Amino acid sequence: MPGGLLLDLSGVLYIEDQTIDGAVDSLRRLQQSGLSIRYVTNTTRSPRSRIHQQLTTLGFNLGIDELFTAPMAAHAYLVKHSLYPYMLIHPDLMVEFKDLRKNDDEHNAVLIGDADQDFTYNNMNTAFRKLMQGMPLISMGKNRYFKQQDGLSIDAGAFVTALEYASGTCAIVTGKPQPEFFLSAASSMGCEPHQVIMIGDDIESDINGASETGMQAILVKTGKYRRGDENKFTQPSSSRCLTDINAATDYILD
Amino acid sequence: MPGGLLLDLSGVLYIEDQTIDGAVDSLRRLQQSGLSIRYVTNTTRSPRSRIHQQLTTLGFNLGIDELFTAPMAAHAYLVKHSLYPYMLIHPDLMVEFKDLRKNDDEHNAVLIGDADQDFTYNNMNTAFRKLMQGMPLISMGKNRYFKQQDGLSIDAGAFVTALEYASGTCAIVTGKPQPEFFLSAASSMGCEPHQVIMIGDDIESDINGASETGMQAILVKTGKYRRGDENKFTQPSSSRCLTDINAATDYILD
Repeated sequence: MPGGLLLDLSGVLYIEDQTIDGAVDSLRRLQQSGLSIRYVTNTTRSPRSRIHQQLTTLGFNLGIDELFTAPMAAHAYLVKHSLYPYMLIHPDLMVEFKDLRKNDDEHNAVLIGDADQDFTYNNMNTAFRKLMQGMPLISMGKNRYFKQQDGLSIDAGAFVTALEYASGTCAIVTGKPQPEFFLSAASSMGCEPHQVIMIGDDIESDINGASETGMQAILVKTGKYRRGDENKFTQPSSSRCLTDINAATDYILD
Repeated sequence: MPGGLLLDLSGVLYIEDQTIDGAVDSLRRLQQSGLSIRYVTNTTRSPRSRIHQQLTTLGFNLGIDELFTAPMAAHAYLVKHSLYPYMLIHPDLMVEFKDLRKNDDEHNAVLIGDADQDFTYNNMNTAFRKLMQGMPLISMGKNRYFKQQDGLSIDAGAFVTALEYASGTCAIVTGKPQPEFFLSAASSMGCEPHQVIMIGDDIESDINGASETGMQAILVKTGKYRRGDENKFTQPSSSRCLTDINAATDYILD
């Protein structure tokens, strides 16, 4: 058995307001085994409190302090570097960055997350113009797509790439697959990377990101998983692909 | 003197509704010299008829048949390959593609241009989902930005790159810097590439695109030109940088 476990949320435990079959029981089994667990998500459409509330409503039982989110990592980065960004983010997430809000002429960075309907041409152009002034681009993730109940949907990483291309800037990513993100979650459990297993549905942000820090990684075939993703492991010896969170739980507890 | 001339429009002759100082007179001098001229543009916010009308209103005198536009090239490509695309394009440009409109379930491609305010999250997601079904992405250009009176603005190339990144698709570009686009304009003048000079303000789409076909190229320091662009020539021996269309005219007619 490993010492600690990192669990991605959307696509692993649930999709929108539907749990993955058996996920509530599997999570309870993992918790009862004595393993340390942290929940690591690049979701940027909701603040941490709402993600926690949603998990609780779905029947998952965890402490809010066990949730590691990409917006938290972005906030820490911004504070550390005294950055007050123009925020191309979801309106519901603004509450997590309200202490960093400044007037337009005082911005010294651009922050981007999954702004959803706020990815308008005009907002993209505002961000572009600030990048052309030399401001850094801080991105909470660079995910290509995510799973919704009616199919895969384009994710913030696409819009990050658009801004990088237009402005010639390279984004600083604070969420997965940034190594520091995984390492700080592992460190909060008192674990070294080789003692940790990461479970996720995103081959790039979850699996290859974690395995490149020295963790083991389990790709599940739920959520955004697409056939053939298991052929894209960059660390095949420490990565494997299993059906879902239930099969991953059996594997870990066996 | 060369045999033929290719002129980019926005940023070279005008910016929005303002002519570049002296451009009307310079164009008249070029026309009176007996040179063949074609006007080549990746502008995709207006149909060809309106671009021609705009040029006429600004005082430029040219035939509509001398205008080579990226939408024309895209239309020819779509017809040749029997493609009926989902169109992520400017509403004003729809008129040029009305013969290729089909119902949603009959689309077999995605066409993208500068959709301006129609670059919404939902439209981007619709395009993304079609690309994930394996449809090809036809792009009229891949420009990073263009010049407006109040500054540089993010261009369609950014949104093309976003869709490429999210879906893992590589766009087929039909406008500049596609070699076929330059070569067909040259061919319409009865010229070989080495007999042609291209004048533009975009180091990638205009200058390097044309010079790589064997044309000479003149980068002007108006429009979207940014300091240092002249250090990015991929064919330095056949590329040069001059102040504006007036200096380029003097150079050509000397």
